[in-house]
Amino acid sequence: MKVDINKILDIDVELTTRILVEFIKEEVRKVGYEKVVMGLSGGIDSAVVAYLAAKAIGPENVYAIMMPYKTSNPDSLSDAKKIVEDLKINAKTIEITPMIDAYFSLPESDSTETDMLRKGNKMARERMSILYDHSSLYDALVIGTSNKTELLLGYGTIYGDMASALNPIGDLYKHQIYLLARYLGVPDSIITKAPSADLWEGQTDEQELGSTYDELDCFLYYKYDCRYTDEELLDYYDNDFIARVVKRVQINHYKRKSPVIAKVSHRSVGHDFLYPRDWNY
Amino acid sequence: MKVDINKILDIDVELTTRILVEFIKEEVRKVGYEKVVMGLSGGIDSAVVAYLAAKAIGPENVYAIMMPYKTSNPDSLSDAKKIVEDLKINAKTIEITPMIDAYFSLPESDSTETDMLRKGNKMARERMSILYDHSSLYDALVIGTSNKTELLLGYGTIYGDMASALNPIGDLYKHQIYLLARYLGVPDSIITKAPSADLWEGQTDEQELGSTYDELDCFLYYKYDCRYTDEELLDYYDNDFIARVVKRVQINHYKRKSPVIAKVSHRSVGHDFLYPRDWNY
Repeated sequence: MKVDINKILDIDVELTTRILVEFIKEEVRKVGYEKVVMGLSGGIDSAVVAYLAAKAIGPENVYAIMMPYKTSNPDSLSDAKKIVEDLKINAKTIEITPMIDAYFSLPESDSTETDMLRKGNKMARERMSILYDHSSLYDALVIGTSNKTELLLGYGTIYGDMASALNPIGDLYKHQIYLLARYLGVPDSIITKAPSADLWEGQTDEQELGSTYDELDCFLYYKYDCRYTDEELLDYYDNDFIARVVKRVQINHYKRKSPVIAKVSHRSVGHDFLYPRDWNY
Repeated sequence: MKVDINKILDIDVELTTRILVEFIKEEVRKVGYEKVVMGLSGGIDSAVVAYLAAKAIGPENVYAIMMPYKTSNPDSLSDAKKIVEDLKINAKTIEITPMIDAYFSLPESDSTETDMLRKGNKMARERMSILYDHSSLYDALVIGTSNKTELLLGYGTIYGDMASALNPIGDLYKHQIYLLARYLGVPDSIITKAPSADLWEGQTDEQELGSTYDELDCFLYYKYDCRYTDEELLDYYDNDFIARVVKRVQINHYKRKSPVIAKVSHRSVGHDFLYPRDWNY
């Protein structure tokens, strides 16, 4: 990569923080809520969201749920607990092992020991389901933690970790999440460890994605934010890389869209029955 | 109600069937799939979808999953099995009881015996999660079964039964689902029983919604399809009914939308990074 990420993906962290804090305040309160509930994994994305949410609506209005599976790295949970202590937000731990194992031990699930992808997706949806259950229990909105890199690459589970009511960090690339994390005072151990979905021992995002976040972030920025042509991109990236990433962004586009509804009337949900999310307020 | 529903919500069942069959064929095949997987509850909506799907892509490409809970009415399962037999589609039964009970028996779930709404939503999301797991297992798209009445009223679970890849009946009011069911040859026992989410014994949709489907269907049609003014609506409905239903449609609008993302760049998912669902094909 011949690109200087520090130049092209730099952000004004103070201004960005102010914007995101206002976003959270506004999006929560205008629909009549005061609280948010979120999954706290111990990773950097949910850490940044927790710091932003605590700033925006006060730590007493933030509910963090830690949802480890039996194979989760214990460091993840202890990193999550550092955030809870630092911010003094509300928190509880719910092990998802009983629900996940109940499903995969059913012969009807037709699963094998090696189905890591199926298991990972089931875990992500179980966590979503627990967060939404607590949304109802606490009268709190589910605040999302997917960053722009993940959203564009479709590196997440539809109706799992990609599901939320509001997402303050969905327009920030992974590199920018790091900048914000440092500014917000996220604990060092969270910033310095390798990003991982923590599905199996030693798993890292970059290994799974086949490229570094820096490479991906810069490419996505050039291609989708700046709309560089393939010819221009070839100055920085080779053909295979371009083809592979573009394909990934495209085939995962469905994860960013609502279900498609067959149109048979003159006003149809998702076609021409269209209002903003906060239509009623 | 002074409205004749048979006049205002009549449809050409033969033409509608042709449109919906083409929709399923097209939406499944253009993204490189051949099969669909669906939840078959024994109710009329999923029945209609099963008949349409079998017509569209052949019964051998339709996978129905029946997912009863221990308190589900046994008639639901036997009605679902009638459809499987009649259509000769693939089917299996997965009891969701172990996963649901594993969760609610955790002290950390802070649940009580009487939390029927929380339980119902958790069940809907468990079923979604199982369908998406089988989407991956079978290489099949999840086909949705929410009708227009439910979608507008928000009478469904976000990221639960409202989640799917494609929905052939989302633009048909409940009354029109009945017309289609009769035309498609859905078994009588399914058509004649009272619609129910089957969360507890004796539950019916109309009792929960506080009005009949006929009343709601006509009102929604006048208000949202025909855009009648409140003054015009008062010729048919009283003030309280209008206020109650309009409020319900509005406060549930979030269920029909993707998460709102804070915009901080010049191209953001959900704001101006917008492509059709089938962008890549």
